[in-house]
Amino acid sequence: MNVVSYQPTPAELSYTFGGRPAVGRVQPGTIIEMSTEDCFGGRVRSVEDLPSRVCEFPYLNPVTGPFHVEGAEPGDTLALHFVAIEPARDWAVSTTFPHFGALTGTHTTAMLQPPLDEVVWLYDVDVDKGVVRYHARRSDFTVELPLDPMHGTVGVAPGASEARMTITPDAHGGNMDTPELRAGVTVYLGVNVEGGLFAIGDGHARQGHGEVCGTAVEAAMNTVVAVELIKGVSTPWPRLEDDGHLMSTGSARPLEDAYRISQHDLVTWTSELTGLDTLDAYQLVSQAGQAPVGNVCDTNYTMVAKLPKDYLGGPAVYESAHSRLRELGRRYLSER
Amino acid sequence: MNVVSYQPTPAELSYTFGGRPAVGRVQPGTIIEMSTEDCFGGRVRSVEDLPSRVCEFPYLNPVTGPFHVEGAEPGDTLALHFVAIEPARDWAVSTTFPHFGALTGTHTTAMLQPPLDEVVWLYDVDVDKGVVRYHARRSDFTVELPLDPMHGTVGVAPGASEARMTITPDAHGGNMDTPELRAGVTVYLGVNVEGGLFAIGDGHARQGHGEVCGTAVEAAMNTVVAVELIKGVSTPWPRLEDDGHLMSTGSARPLEDAYRISQHDLVTWTSELTGLDTLDAYQLVSQAGQAPVGNVCDTNYTMVAKLPKDYLGGPAVYESAHSRLRELGRRYLSER
Amino acid sequence: MNVVSYQPTPAELSYTFGGRPAVGRVQPGTIIEMSTEDCFGGRVRSVEDLPSRVCEFPYLNPVTGPFHVEGAEPGDTLALHFVAIEPARDWAVSTTFPHFGALTGTHTTAMLQPPLDEVVWLYDVDVDKGVVRYHARRSDFTVELPLDPMHGTVGVAPGASEARMTITPDAHGGNMDTPELRAGVTVYLGVNVEGGLFAIGDGHARQGHGEVCGTAVEAAMNTVVAVELIKGVSTPWPRLEDDGHLMSTGSARPLEDAYRISQHDLVTWTSELTGLDTLDAYQLVSQAGQAPVGNVCDTNYTMVAKLPKDYLGGPAVYESAHSRLRELGRRYLSER
Amino acid sequence: MNVVSYQPTPAELSYTFGGRPAVGRVQPGTIIEMSTEDCFGGRVRSVEDLPSRVCEFPYLNPVTGPFHVEGAEPGDTLALHFVAIEPARDWAVSTTFPHFGALTGTHTTAMLQPPLDEVVWLYDVDVDKGVVRYHARRSDFTVELPLDPMHGTVGVAPGASEARMTITPDAHGGNMDTPELRAGVTVYLGVNVEGGLFAIGDGHARQGHGEVCGTAVEAAMNTVVAVELIKGVSTPWPRLEDDGHLMSTGSARPLEDAYRISQHDLVTWTSELTGLDTLDAYQLVSQAGQAPVGNVCDTNYTMVAKLPKDYLGGPAVYESAHSRLRELGRRYLSER
Repeated sequence: MNVVSYQPTPAELSYTFGGRPAVGRVQPGTIIEMSTEDCFGGRVRSVEDLPSRVCEFPYLNPVTGPFHVEGAEPGDTLALHFVAIEPARDWAVSTTFPHFGALTGTHTTAMLQPPLDEVVWLYDVDVDKGVVRYHARRSDFTVELPLDPMHGTVGVAPGASEARMTITPDAHGGNMDTPELRAGVTVYLGVNVEGGLFAIGDGHARQGHGEVCGTAVEAAMNTVVAVELIKGVSTPWPRLEDDGHLMSTGSARPLEDAYRISQHDLVTWTSELTGLDTLDAYQLVSQAGQAPVGNVCDTNYTMVAKLPKDYLGGPAVYESAHSRLRELGRRYLSER
Repeated sequence: MNVVSYQPTPAELSYTFGGRPAVGRVQPGTIIEMSTEDCFGGRVRSVEDLPSRVCEFPYLNPVTGPFHVEGAEPGDTLALHFVAIEPARDWAVSTTFPHFGALTGTHTTAMLQPPLDEVVWLYDVDVDKGVVRYHARRSDFTVELPLDPMHGTVGVAPGASEARMTITPDAHGGNMDTPELRAGVTVYLGVNVEGGLFAIGDGHARQGHGEVCGTAVEAAMNTVVAVELIKGVSTPWPRLEDDGHLMSTGSARPLEDAYRISQHDLVTWTSELTGLDTLDAYQLVSQAGQAPVGNVCDTNYTMVAKLPKDYLGGPAVYESAHSRLRELGRRYLSER
Repeated sequence: MNVVSYQPTPAELSYTFGGRPAVGRVQPGTIIEMSTEDCFGGRVRSVEDLPSRVCEFPYLNPVTGPFHVEGAEPGDTLALHFVAIEPARDWAVSTTFPHFGALTGTHTTAMLQPPLDEVVWLYDVDVDKGVVRYHARRSDFTVELPLDPMHGTVGVAPGASEARMTITPDAHGGNMDTPELRAGVTVYLGVNVEGGLFAIGDGHARQGHGEVCGTAVEAAMNTVVAVELIKGVSTPWPRLEDDGHLMSTGSARPLEDAYRISQHDLVTWTSELTGLDTLDAYQLVSQAGQAPVGNVCDTNYTMVAKLPKDYLGGPAVYESAHSRLRELGRRYLSER
Repeated sequence: MNVVSYQPTPAELSYTFGGRPAVGRVQPGTIIEMSTEDCFGGRVRSVEDLPSRVCEFPYLNPVTGPFHVEGAEPGDTLALHFVAIEPARDWAVSTTFPHFGALTGTHTTAMLQPPLDEVVWLYDVDVDKGVVRYHARRSDFTVELPLDPMHGTVGVAPGASEARMTITPDAHGGNMDTPELRAGVTVYLGVNVEGGLFAIGDGHARQGHGEVCGTAVEAAMNTVVAVELIKGVSTPWPRLEDDGHLMSTGSARPLEDAYRISQHDLVTWTSELTGLDTLDAYQLVSQAGQAPVGNVCDTNYTMVAKLPKDYLGGPAVYESAHSRLRELGRRYLSER
């Protein structure tokens, strides 16, 4: 088993996809143990640490990477299997952020109303019990919510010589903020530049659907990823696979366009996998498909289209990368 | 137990919310056994029956009702508990419909491209086995999907002397097309006119999220509803309650506005129920809330915001109407 | 010349399109002199009269009518030529309105921020000088703006048994709020119900593009309209014609859909009028077309697509109704 | 007068804002004579040259530059005055482009319908007569339209280490595609990186509002720009000034957000310039403001908010850069 470990210093974190040299090179088949910082770069550590004071815009939402995958070329697909996503601290944090979130005027949904108050919530993270603990700020209400660790941000360098802030999700991945991206899931990303240059960040101890206030239960993570390269197979938008489902994502505005992209990709993918006529696939996805909401707060919104593999006869996709990586991950976990 | 039965003739079906006299009057506490037609008025019965030929626009999406609830006045809330939703036939139907659906140009998302083909799919409905059977039209692919009966359309007469086509969801309810509206669920609708004038239709044997092709597995239903009236309590947008969850809906365009309405209502409702400060409630919903997609194909789109009641300490809402109606429904089912 | 005069009492005003009997019947060829109230029903008369206090929701945006046009049947088109639109008072009024307007959270763009202040501005209307005079409320700044009277609202009864609040623009017309609808313009409206049932209201002494704060310089008007009926010619969305231009409108959300509808209609109309292939018409409109913004604040947004008639060789549309009505209007004005 | 001339070779053209070193350095006060290629890089030269065949994606929409302005630092503003924009050839070109444009499904408004035909139109450009000549492709219809040269694309390097395709308009400028950007206009762009790094391209012999088919009358240009630097004054979104008007731009999706940004900026700018209270400025812009549509086809849509300077008492903005540069431009033109 080829295992490498990478713990970036703060100065080694990235704030864009594209426009940065790789922090390391890995062979397909490698397992990478990495640490990731939270979206505030770890600077919000108490309810007194308002992001607008302790963070330095635009240095938000840092990612670990990018990693150059040997042999990856435009037109290929990277398979990133999340073996483990484990909170690195016993606390996590969330905030309202001025002019950010779904229920407030923003930079683009420009309003004349004053911004909402900037407030920080500190969560206890109890890995053994499998919960995070919410504490109200303006009363003594408290409640435990299930721990469900995930990464908000994963992506590769975009094409066309672009470099995009990590906060932006698009066809290259980025800040999709979908709770579907948890351990046990494989993410497929189309390669746009040599080496692919993938990076990962923005761990969430858990997240509601849409991340309505703009931030989740933000947590530094110790994350293990197994990497494969599928040569000569392209991927138009990020796709996910878990043991039971195929998933397509779309990131755009307005939100119906994110829905359209994700459902369109799932329909055409279904058609390719099964030989179904496009309209037959459209019909099947219409009745059997799910649509988990990713984010409704970032610079692009994200929707996921999800289909049980059983309905398609359990097709092998991407040369069975998921089941192979899943097995590799299981071996890794049993041996560590 | 006060049980009434109502089976409308085709001429008695309604095509608007508002603008029509009641078909009957019921006391709060009544259980109504009713039949509902499918969205095509039962005219699409084989794959040869193209809607554009056999249906007569705008006579689509008929609803059973409206029913006048004695004592209902503007500012009150109707509680409609769905005791049973049972397919009335052993088949159901779905279609692509010219210029309708999420992945095609429409009346308002006007495009110069020609419409998609109009195609009909006939499903077998097997209640005993709990499945519907999909048959591809252009190959011999077939697959069974879980039966999950629901109503796409439920609503009351809108205020302001409006009458709205049943296809349109808005603050009065209407064609929300959410799979959350299944048996065991109570729907709360704010009363806008005397008697409330609720109506129900558009049964689906099952539906994918967003109803991406524009139609679900459309089915006539035998449906049982238990009615209560909550006096002096208003409801801004339709809300749902099941044994475990509170739900708010929003219907608007673009889709992010449907999301905003539903999440905004869930946040303010959470704040009312728990005494939490608004921003504390915003934070809690952000991390604990779900966002099932209703429709992304109708004249307004619909999103649902959903929260486990446990997280709020299991508050009683609407004077515990749901648990009372749930119990009444159980008695009805055990006695029939 | 067949001239009728109609001055409604407050109780005779309408608040919906559809759902109301006609206030009168007119023959095609008739000139109607009518008075219209402002959008506040004339109740906001000083800067102290906050709409939320003096108005009674939903009794806003009253229209004069509806008028039954003899012989009008579904599939026909009404031609309404605006001969004169004259302010009825020497003052007009505008306001910010809680949760209404483009730069604030609204009923559907739901936000947690508090609403903007409700403020009233009173304008002087100086018809002789051709100006309205703006007075700042929180300083002594004042400026004169050109008087440019128009009607925000004109429409017919919608089809499908609907009744819509007058505030809503859609395919039947309604509150389009386009400054293009001034004296000298002919509006074409497709007939959906017997008699057409047109109504007119919401006069503006002038209006910026998009009515960004939600209200224009709202004014009661004395308005003269000449009516014609074009039999057997349907009109999908309201169209306008002035001496130099053809115009199509679209009303929907999001705003790009309003743009799409209006441009799509102008392209297909251009193709019909000239015999140009659809893509050739698309190209011509793309380079020669204008796109005046109607409203970006109502329940649907409105865009106008506008093309100089010269570029099409000055085609006669709707059986030359505009030039005929224009001539009739000129005669009326010279004789009164 | 400090005049420099720059004619890039094809290899020197840029396809992003950001991520590229400057092609040259200029002092504030410099006049730059430059040539720009059309959006197809000059490769579409006849109706047989389909873009999908002769162009190489993503090498579209090349810009001339970027130019480093000496002394420009983040927080400053560049003033670019367009002295002259002159078609470089006696022909120009437009096309429908698969999955691009407002009346077709696109990359993000994903549809299952087949794309529109790819068609090329060749225009005659007659500078002396001041017209372009349209020729239908599928009939012999022809018409002359006024020549009105403009640049679709102007911008600076974005902040946050981003590099954006030139096709994308955003806060840094880019492909705004507004016909307001013609000779005689000054564009103000906020500086995000040292030197500003501005670039210019995408000349249009003329353009309809919204560029509905996705391309304008695309033309190579000989363009003259006078550059100034306003130190210590920031600019949130690109602004324009002509002899009579102030203009703010906004670029986002959905289109109402582009409208909101532009109107919000015009309101707050008006307030700053006049000392008016924000709501007083909101009211004034609501009644006096215009809203020319930029593009409704690019990756972000663009709207312009425009106000006659007279209404504000003709304030001096940006240290009177426009009138000074206008005068400089006049001198240049009279002397060349």
